[in-house]
Amino acid sequence: MADDIKWQRGKKEEMAMIRVGVIGGSGYTGTELLRLLLTHPAVEITVVTSRRHKGKKVHDVNTHLRPFADIEYEDVAVKEIARRCDVVFTAVPHGVSMKYVPELLENGVRVIDLSADYRLKCEEYERIYGKHEDEAFRRGEREAVYGLTEIHPEVSSAVLVANPGCYPTGAILAVAPIVHEFDVCCTVIDAKSGISGGGSEPSARSHFPNLAENIIPYDVTTHRHTAEIRQEILRYRDVRVHFTPHVIPTIRGILTTAHVFIRGHADREDIREAYEHFYADCKFIRILNDVPSLRDVRGTNFCDIWFDVEEAGGDEVRAVVISAIDNLVKGGAGQAIQNMNLMFKMPEEEGLWFPGIVP
Amino acid sequence: MADDIKWQRGKKEEMAMIRVGVIGGSGYTGTELLRLLLTHPAVEITVVTSRRHKGKKVHDVNTHLRPFADIEYEDVAVKEIARRCDVVFTAVPHGVSMKYVPELLENGVRVIDLSADYRLKCEEYERIYGKHEDEAFRRGEREAVYGLTEIHPEVSSAVLVANPGCYPTGAILAVAPIVHEFDVCCTVIDAKSGISGGGSEPSARSHFPNLAENIIPYDVTTHRHTAEIRQEILRYRDVRVHFTPHVIPTIRGILTTAHVFIRGHADREDIREAYEHFYADCKFIRILNDVPSLRDVRGTNFCDIWFDVEEAGGDEVRAVVISAIDNLVKGGAGQAIQNMNLMFKMPEEEGLWFPGIVP
Amino acid sequence: MADDIKWQRGKKEEMAMIRVGVIGGSGYTGTELLRLLLTHPAVEITVVTSRRHKGKKVHDVNTHLRPFADIEYEDVAVKEIARRCDVVFTAVPHGVSMKYVPELLENGVRVIDLSADYRLKCEEYERIYGKHEDEAFRRGEREAVYGLTEIHPEVSSAVLVANPGCYPTGAILAVAPIVHEFDVCCTVIDAKSGISGGGSEPSARSHFPNLAENIIPYDVTTHRHTAEIRQEILRYRDVRVHFTPHVIPTIRGILTTAHVFIRGHADREDIREAYEHFYADCKFIRILNDVPSLRDVRGTNFCDIWFDVEEAGGDEVRAVVISAIDNLVKGGAGQAIQNMNLMFKMPEEEGLWFPGIVP
Amino acid sequence: MADDIKWQRGKKEEMAMIRVGVIGGSGYTGTELLRLLLTHPAVEITVVTSRRHKGKKVHDVNTHLRPFADIEYEDVAVKEIARRCDVVFTAVPHGVSMKYVPELLENGVRVIDLSADYRLKCEEYERIYGKHEDEAFRRGEREAVYGLTEIHPEVSSAVLVANPGCYPTGAILAVAPIVHEFDVCCTVIDAKSGISGGGSEPSARSHFPNLAENIIPYDVTTHRHTAEIRQEILRYRDVRVHFTPHVIPTIRGILTTAHVFIRGHADREDIREAYEHFYADCKFIRILNDVPSLRDVRGTNFCDIWFDVEEAGGDEVRAVVISAIDNLVKGGAGQAIQNMNLMFKMPEEEGLWFPGIVP
Repeated sequence: MADDIKWQRGKKEEMAMIRVGVIGGSGYTGTELLRLLLTHPAVEITVVTSRRHKGKKVHDVNTHLRPFADIEYEDVAVKEIARRCDVVFTAVPHGVSMKYVPELLENGVRVIDLSADYRLKCEEYERIYGKHEDEAFRRGEREAVYGLTEIHPEVSSAVLVANPGCYPTGAILAVAPIVHEFDVCCTVIDAKSGISGGGSEPSARSHFPNLAENIIPYDVTTHRHTAEIRQEILRYRDVRVHFTPHVIPTIRGILTTAHVFIRGHADREDIREAYEHFYADCKFIRILNDVPSLRDVRGTNFCDIWFDVEEAGGDEVRAVVISAIDNLVKGGAGQAIQNMNLMFKMPEEEGLWFPGIVP
Repeated sequence: MADDIKWQRGKKEEMAMIRVGVIGGSGYTGTELLRLLLTHPAVEITVVTSRRHKGKKVHDVNTHLRPFADIEYEDVAVKEIARRCDVVFTAVPHGVSMKYVPELLENGVRVIDLSADYRLKCEEYERIYGKHEDEAFRRGEREAVYGLTEIHPEVSSAVLVANPGCYPTGAILAVAPIVHEFDVCCTVIDAKSGISGGGSEPSARSHFPNLAENIIPYDVTTHRHTAEIRQEILRYRDVRVHFTPHVIPTIRGILTTAHVFIRGHADREDIREAYEHFYADCKFIRILNDVPSLRDVRGTNFCDIWFDVEEAGGDEVRAVVISAIDNLVKGGAGQAIQNMNLMFKMPEEEGLWFPGIVP
Repeated sequence: MADDIKWQRGKKEEMAMIRVGVIGGSGYTGTELLRLLLTHPAVEITVVTSRRHKGKKVHDVNTHLRPFADIEYEDVAVKEIARRCDVVFTAVPHGVSMKYVPELLENGVRVIDLSADYRLKCEEYERIYGKHEDEAFRRGEREAVYGLTEIHPEVSSAVLVANPGCYPTGAILAVAPIVHEFDVCCTVIDAKSGISGGGSEPSARSHFPNLAENIIPYDVTTHRHTAEIRQEILRYRDVRVHFTPHVIPTIRGILTTAHVFIRGHADREDIREAYEHFYADCKFIRILNDVPSLRDVRGTNFCDIWFDVEEAGGDEVRAVVISAIDNLVKGGAGQAIQNMNLMFKMPEEEGLWFPGIVP
Repeated sequence: MADDIKWQRGKKEEMAMIRVGVIGGSGYTGTELLRLLLTHPAVEITVVTSRRHKGKKVHDVNTHLRPFADIEYEDVAVKEIARRCDVVFTAVPHGVSMKYVPELLENGVRVIDLSADYRLKCEEYERIYGKHEDEAFRRGEREAVYGLTEIHPEVSSAVLVANPGCYPTGAILAVAPIVHEFDVCCTVIDAKSGISGGGSEPSARSHFPNLAENIIPYDVTTHRHTAEIRQEILRYRDVRVHFTPHVIPTIRGILTTAHVFIRGHADREDIREAYEHFYADCKFIRILNDVPSLRDVRGTNFCDIWFDVEEAGGDEVRAVVISAIDNLVKGGAGQAIQNMNLMFKMPEEEGLWFPGIVP
């Protein structure tokens, strides 16, 4: 077990490395995990599974990883995965993760689940996604920590982390501080996402002639991520949360425009103070002086935040809080590694501390 | 004067044509006016001005108009323009139109102004744009009709029409019927525009590496078009109107996502009925059964509208109304020609009745 | 039969209209045919087939055609199609057209085939595409005219026209005049196409994250359109023809860069003269003074051409001839209608005479 | 002097770091240099100049570099730059570098020049760019090594390196091995570049509505980079070299399609063998089994290469060699650092050894 690894920068070669597995290593999130894990100084990738690509080299399927990922995709039993790993990332669809997680945990392996399976209370999960098959979870005997490290520092002692959805990451990070600090009554969250959030399989929505020169609103009042956003925001205050997503002709990134109605007064400086205080020690939150840009966060684990405010009438103000993240990094694989870092007592930024690629 | 032209489809060649001038015929809006006017069956273009391109052929500057626009850009006195025209489109920046409009009107020419100069009450205009130089307008002796024909049928008897801004066109058309019919208290209008709305001059925002793979929010609580939207929406009810625009990596089109809070109950069918009633005879409004797409309106004068609704808590519902327009056609040149058609007693769709280009 | 219709501009309502059918009216080419036919003044669409969408309204499937295409997709027998039509466009894949064409022709209907089935000599066809099933064609008893009207004026008396492929249209129009006039020995044709040429079905190549921010070369020495290009170019001179296509992150348009090696001397003026002479009466060819742009031809039937020249060493010059077309219009549906116009003794530009949409 | 630094992986903190300066650190190439240098384990950035941004923090101007580039832009004398640096990158336009280089070299500082000033023989330079102002260079007393490390290993002992242009990097790497090995007579190089090669200043070409949904050929027979390509290719054999560049609607990347005519026979395996031999120890060259993709090299220093071949007639074959690079990394800043690594006896991949970002 790498449980008590004393990780030290610059001495990695002499240390025990964390043995890491990725279940579902061929989708966008799984591949992004591999990209980041391959250059992580404290990690050894010991197993990557893919039924579809079993027997092929990872970097023959994902040619951008040549020659770094000279590893074979496997299709092996959970017990074998457990034997080889200290921690496993499950990057499979909801409904599938729950088939792996119990056995992994029972074999003493920590799990960071990138699906929706453990993000919500069981009852809420079943209302939205259908029956949950992990009996321990249903009985309330298994709990996951919601892995948004900026508001859940307890991930550092978790054995099961539910990695947040991409939209909830952008939305919650944008809205949590202002709801925490001010008398917010209502927030309308209008999100714009790159198409990579839809996965690597071609679809009508991802068909270039349908998306280029266009913007596609969808699940306008019914997106499943709304429950996650509500769950986390309502921890601070009883506030109305409305969510509407759009896909824009962009590969990566989510820009979240949150219109937040505050009873009473708040000016820009009050709000800035609240954000700076709330995110005081958070390495990956950057409070900006101007509107965020997907450019600046592309390929990185940063979440950039900015806000403006206007009188709204009726003794209220409208704050507009805008956040930008890379949906596959901070909204997926990067955040999962940030969780791993904390679970293994490393600095949260280990393996993730690099600037974005602009232009 | 073509004032009393009895326009008849299919007999155009025997009729007097409307003599049309375009002041500022080299920007995006001016050029789009020319593109549409060139194939309009009842129009003869008699003058096109451009200081910068004076003496050049229109279709040598705008090569997509070859061989249709074998006309010279001129830089002539207003009196001469008036002499040659029944109606003039002013497609110049705000502050410039007001230098042409009074003399044109005094010479008996009708004017469709595509700038912001005559869209607002004088006081409101001066608060936002600075001093207005048309003394008759300042004294309240000159009035324009706000040229959104779907809600201002009185354009048909106007001599001066203030053609709406691109954002207001999409926003007002989306929101007017629901505010008219239901007890709306608040609307958050989150708009996404193609970059052509920013004009033909290169800028940091239109620089390809800055906009591609990005989305740029701007003037988040302060956009000047907010006043137009408020002016028109508040005609129906005293409602809070909030507006936030974004630029998306797309050339043409505005998608407007209006989050509308209604006190009491309203379901999707109630709302549909209200829209179908409100826009009963409007040729260019299409009420859809699914989310609108910028694709479907590209190059056309249509405004596509769709809506969804959810319980919002506290005895309110949130309706999400989404509209799609081409910012240069329905949001600019096309709407201006629609106004002209009505002013000259033609069917509103004359010269504008064609489908969009998909894909 | 509309065979001897005396078509006259401005009197269309009193005339017999050409009764037109479209077999395969739901793909990109079929839908583009409908878009153009719907506003063609001399055409009545009498049947549109689609197995997949049988019973649905055309404009419910293709929402950009609302309210223009209030027609039902049908799935009817060839004999019935023949009964209702003077001319039929077959917009189905190669191998399928040949199942319809013989019976249509035998019933006295003219056919414009947009597939590859009748573009090549039978032997060449079978070498590339496999067995041809039209026995009359195999026996040499059925012939089609290759429908590039600029070089095949004999379409005007054809009963079967093989509408050219999109790449060949751009390539042949670029190269034919220079090969005709000069001692050309070799031409390297490097083409760049929008993705709509790949059709409306989502695929790995059309998946937005694969194509955006990329350019994809394919069939680098083996593209099937090479045979068409060779067939037409070699009519002028025995010259080596090499062809390599790429897909660019663009919806519509093909830019063809033809590198042409000429033995002996030729300067830019010599070449211009040759092109102007060759295309003297061709309405849709525009010889430019600067590089062509896909923008200028978008949505139109124009082919824009420009060239430059340099010394190549060894008593040769390299001419670079660049052409731009809209692959779905001049490279597909528009050219098909241009063929129809000529077959029915109308001006070639009827229904196609409008400028492109810029920006 | 860091001249004889014994660089060792994993012990960097105990070593003397290389003191690095960047002259012109605010354009795309300069900023990309900073991005890569900031995470280079053996480098300390001691000076970054920019007249325009003097006094501002680098990461306030280039917000994607927050919080990594907490350095001030300066505008200091060359002597002072020399005092603080072991090596200086000059990332300024041609004609400007030559004002800095002599004094830097005279003060014992090594220089990697990213402009065109030292890439060509003086005579050739002056024919294309105008008078050269470095007298020592004009007299032939100063020489630079052309910094394409794969074919110029002598950079390791150079004091002045002329970093190649972006197009030449893609073109020469594609063509050098085949010209070296086979009896090549002629090559037509048709290149497609992202717009970032045009720099960070907005221009008509980079204006989003001009470039999106388009492709722009330019300097079709006259691009200045042709001389560089010829100079390097002709070192292997006397061959005709033709070059035509295009800009595609993409931010980063150059795809080079080289059509290479070989006298006699060569099949795909022969060619593969030649490439694998030629680039045997080159870490950044990847010989692929399928067409290259700009995606795979984005943000990296890799050059991906693939080829196909066909009979060309007349006892010749046409090979199509396709290369993909990131124009700002392997075609600019990355290659410059690769040069630095070799000049300071480090592994060539130091600070550059990471995979690309896909999707």
